[in-house]
Amino acid sequence: MIVNLMVVEIRIYGLEGIPEVKPGDDLATLIIEAADREGIGLMDGDVVVVSQKVVSKAEGRVVRLDTVQPSRFALNLAEAEGKDPRLVELILREAKRIVKARDGHIITETLHGFVCANSGVDRSNIPGEDVVSLLPVDPDESARRIRDRIREIKGVDVAVVVTDTFGRAWRVGQVNFAVGVSGMKPLIDYRGVLDAYGYVLKATSIAVADEVAAAAELVMGKVSRIPVAVVRGLRFIRGEGSARELVRPIKRDLFR
Amino acid sequence: MIVNLMVVEIRIYGLEGIPEVKPGDDLATLIIEAADREGIGLMDGDVVVVSQKVVSKAEGRVVRLDTVQPSRFALNLAEAEGKDPRLVELILREAKRIVKARDGHIITETLHGFVCANSGVDRSNIPGEDVVSLLPVDPDESARRIRDRIREIKGVDVAVVVTDTFGRAWRVGQVNFAVGVSGMKPLIDYRGVLDAYGYVLKATSIAVADEVAAAAELVMGKVSRIPVAVVRGLRFIRGEGSARELVRPIKRDLFR
Repeated sequence: MIVNLMVVEIRIYGLEGIPEVKPGDDLATLIIEAADREGIGLMDGDVVVVSQKVVSKAEGRVVRLDTVQPSRFALNLAEAEGKDPRLVELILREAKRIVKARDGHIITETLHGFVCANSGVDRSNIPGEDVVSLLPVDPDESARRIRDRIREIKGVDVAVVVTDTFGRAWRVGQVNFAVGVSGMKPLIDYRGVLDAYGYVLKATSIAVADEVAAAAELVMGKVSRIPVAVVRGLRFIRGEGSARELVRPIKRDLFR
Repeated sequence: MIVNLMVVEIRIYGLEGIPEVKPGDDLATLIIEAADREGIGLMDGDVVVVSQKVVSKAEGRVVRLDTVQPSRFALNLAEAEGKDPRLVELILREAKRIVKARDGHIITETLHGFVCANSGVDRSNIPGEDVVSLLPVDPDESARRIRDRIREIKGVDVAVVVTDTFGRAWRVGQVNFAVGVSGMKPLIDYRGVLDAYGYVLKATSIAVADEVAAAAELVMGKVSRIPVAVVRGLRFIRGEGSARELVRPIKRDLFR
């Protein structure tokens, strides 16, 4: 095999073999062990991409629906949209406002400011009947904790991106988005920078954390048990960062 | 170096050294040569991701603004938004409708159905003063031609994704999207599929072509001359495919 060290190259590894995550589990340890088992280890400058599902499980953000008492409003909305009222109750508790409810879909703005279906409340990839996961309360903080703990245990400085799969305006299909970020600037601002021909770029700011999230989904999939990916070789701007930087204030949103 | 062949792994290579592309250039040849020079070659199952900029250049979709005569409407809109009237004229010619014009930004639905700033008309990364590029007339067809030609010259079956960088509703920052696809299904439909716990997935359809586009941007950047990336190791569904499958019909769009 020819290896050309000058090639601009990124590798994305999917970490298999992470056991079922339970409340209180130390995700950093599980991630380090899985990376070691696969022979890739974690290295300085890696970006560790973690599905919100395992973060929520570790943080106990999992709810049995039979413990939920729906409000009158939840009952009505559930009937209108043909959904489980207990699920709708949780969707409403996790929402700042309803963006649209129609055809059996409820799109909300979550307490964090993300716009997505069902406030991120989700039934998939959880063991047990009628159990759902909620998004982490503060996904940036979740990312920061995993990052700090990896540094503590393994002595390496990684960035961490917590992701969830959302639909989009104008486009069919969902993609992975960054909902929590630590250790990288989520945006690369090219405004004022010269392009390869000396033209000053005007309106370009790249949401690199969202692109990393999308890239990681390519190895994670929805039905394989790969809740964590390691992105190696990415040139990114270090910094604490926050996924909140990726939330567009409504007043400045021209895309809807 | 430990190489574990069982690791789920994707590699993304940025192809440097592609010369300035001119109308009529054979992109497939330039891509094959660049991949060979970097020692990676092109292989069956690779996804070749190509920036629309070089596709547009090869197809002669480049316009000198001094050849453009703005209409009365373009003059008015240009004045309102503080833009060059000749640029606005091209934006309008490439648009089906204006989604929003405000604060110096013009968001349109392009003739292809994509919603983006300036109908995809763009000044960056083109040599010469006051020269802009337009999106390819039929980016799926552009992708198909590159794919067919790579098969013809090199005998390998790759998928090709043509990309452009768009803003998004609800989110700050731009990401790379698929505007042309050939050789892969742009969507993976998980509806009805069982997750790892036997739960039937209901609403999940992943826009894998958009995720591939986003992933490739991580090596392409905006100021480096890397207009092409090769994604290797991706498991995707073969098929002719079309980026039009990623355009959401307005009636079914709940995200705005």
